[in-house]
Amino acid sequence: MLTKEEIADWFKSLQDNICNALENEDGGAVFIEDKWERQEGGGGRTRIIQNGNVIEKGGVAFSAVHGPLPEFLGKELGTLNIERGTFYATGVSIVIHPKSPMVPIIHMNVRYFETGDNIKWFGGGIDLTPHYVDEADARFFHQHLKVVCDKFDPAYYTEFKKWADDYFFIKHRNETRGIGGIFFDHLKSTEKRTIEQLFNFVKAVGESFAPIYTHFMNKNKKLPYNENEKQWQLLRRGRYVEFNLVYDRGTRFGLETNGRVESILMSLPQMASWTYNYTPQKNSKEEKTLSFLKRGISWV
Amino acid sequence: MLTKEEIADWFKSLQDNICNALENEDGGAVFIEDKWERQEGGGGRTRIIQNGNVIEKGGVAFSAVHGPLPEFLGKELGTLNIERGTFYATGVSIVIHPKSPMVPIIHMNVRYFETGDNIKWFGGGIDLTPHYVDEADARFFHQHLKVVCDKFDPAYYTEFKKWADDYFFIKHRNETRGIGGIFFDHLKSTEKRTIEQLFNFVKAVGESFAPIYTHFMNKNKKLPYNENEKQWQLLRRGRYVEFNLVYDRGTRFGLETNGRVESILMSLPQMASWTYNYTPQKNSKEEKTLSFLKRGISWV
Repeated sequence: MLTKEEIADWFKSLQDNICNALENEDGGAVFIEDKWERQEGGGGRTRIIQNGNVIEKGGVAFSAVHGPLPEFLGKELGTLNIERGTFYATGVSIVIHPKSPMVPIIHMNVRYFETGDNIKWFGGGIDLTPHYVDEADARFFHQHLKVVCDKFDPAYYTEFKKWADDYFFIKHRNETRGIGGIFFDHLKSTEKRTIEQLFNFVKAVGESFAPIYTHFMNKNKKLPYNENEKQWQLLRRGRYVEFNLVYDRGTRFGLETNGRVESILMSLPQMASWTYNYTPQKNSKEEKTLSFLKRGISWV
Repeated sequence: MLTKEEIADWFKSLQDNICNALENEDGGAVFIEDKWERQEGGGGRTRIIQNGNVIEKGGVAFSAVHGPLPEFLGKELGTLNIERGTFYATGVSIVIHPKSPMVPIIHMNVRYFETGDNIKWFGGGIDLTPHYVDEADARFFHQHLKVVCDKFDPAYYTEFKKWADDYFFIKHRNETRGIGGIFFDHLKSTEKRTIEQLFNFVKAVGESFAPIYTHFMNKNKKLPYNENEKQWQLLRRGRYVEFNLVYDRGTRFGLETNGRVESILMSLPQMASWTYNYTPQKNSKEEKTLSFLKRGISWV
């Protein structure tokens, strides 16, 4: 019988493994760790890496929190008795902002949730935000995720890719945050699939992070770039900030439930920029990248 | 009888006057203007100044929009018949981000709103966000606003100053955006005060902007600053971004009603920064500034 402690322990080991892999590939900086406790129950260990050779600012956070169910979450879940409700949530969240505009921003989250009335589910996602979309890199990324998904259910990739397209979407800009990836939530055991099988899927997603991202770090970190490309990176990071503060559910959940602010906002970049009404030049690399920030592009 | 056209015309002339005053004081850059139309009705003229001698990025926007009442606004107003409701809104919005960390960020908004069932009101506010709080400057600012308010109602300053403290508050940081100012909304005609008198108050607030801000530009632009102070400015701008994207009603109203994104987000700075868990040194100027970012400080 799968327990929440077992799941949390595995998430901790995932955090360890990912931090090791990122430190090795970066070669210039190490993670610092902050342990924190949540007044209402639980806590976490936030790990931050800054000013590395490849990574400018990144966070790999583990948390396991519990307590009375926040009201707005009870509403979202619908059927629960909010007043008596409790919850337990554990997971790993990652955002990495590289120094070079040639290396993509990446985000991953894997999480487990259960309520006092014994509803249990997994959620998660992984998405890539290249400052410049390289089509071969985009195909590599999506192909890798498809292989992970296909091992568990032939329908997963298509469904979760669409979910990511719709979730990682900056509505007021009418553009996606990046080239998407996969996103899933409320994965509950069914007749077809046990909670253990779902856990195995989430494990496979989590374990895909380090090989995928160290591949991009290694492949792209040596590429040259100029001042214009750096400036474009800062503008794209501005959009990343807009998505996270306006739309991201994890961020808004955290801010509304009085979460640990520095852990929630570790996703924000060291430096970001906004220029009024910036429009890329015709036929530029920047314009080409914008043409890929659409929903529904098939990369595999 | 005061008409909405008369109010909109006055807001336009306010925009002209403020842009002239800021250009004169800056001496290095001029405003560019974008006229835009709103599909559902109305439009605006957004004016942006960038890379001046004193102002790094600033916007002074006029708009007058109308159409069917957005649903969430109808809900907020409560008594209205949402389905048949229409609205008209006009105003001027300003945010100025200076180059020097010694010159404060400033924001002002003055607005008029009416609905199809003839409910009419004014709203507005002006608040100052110094990167470093200078107590004499803060007193000057609040004293100036108090004089403006006192001419119309001896209760206004106290009431509207508290409203600003509560409104310009970054809840998740437990700090105010800056040293506040005044904020007011739903100012409707009463037995005591006609809509014309309220308009005169709003005019006085609008006309206070240029003298106040050019005073600070002129006084502080020559002050020397170092790299650390510039870095602190970028962090404070990060908080400004957090406030605007997470809490500001104007921003969220604009994004939710499909407003002109570049005009709404002109409030964001050219460059902003986030550092994980930044804590100012003991007894530093930065620590002192944080001690002033609290509600309820009396500056007059």
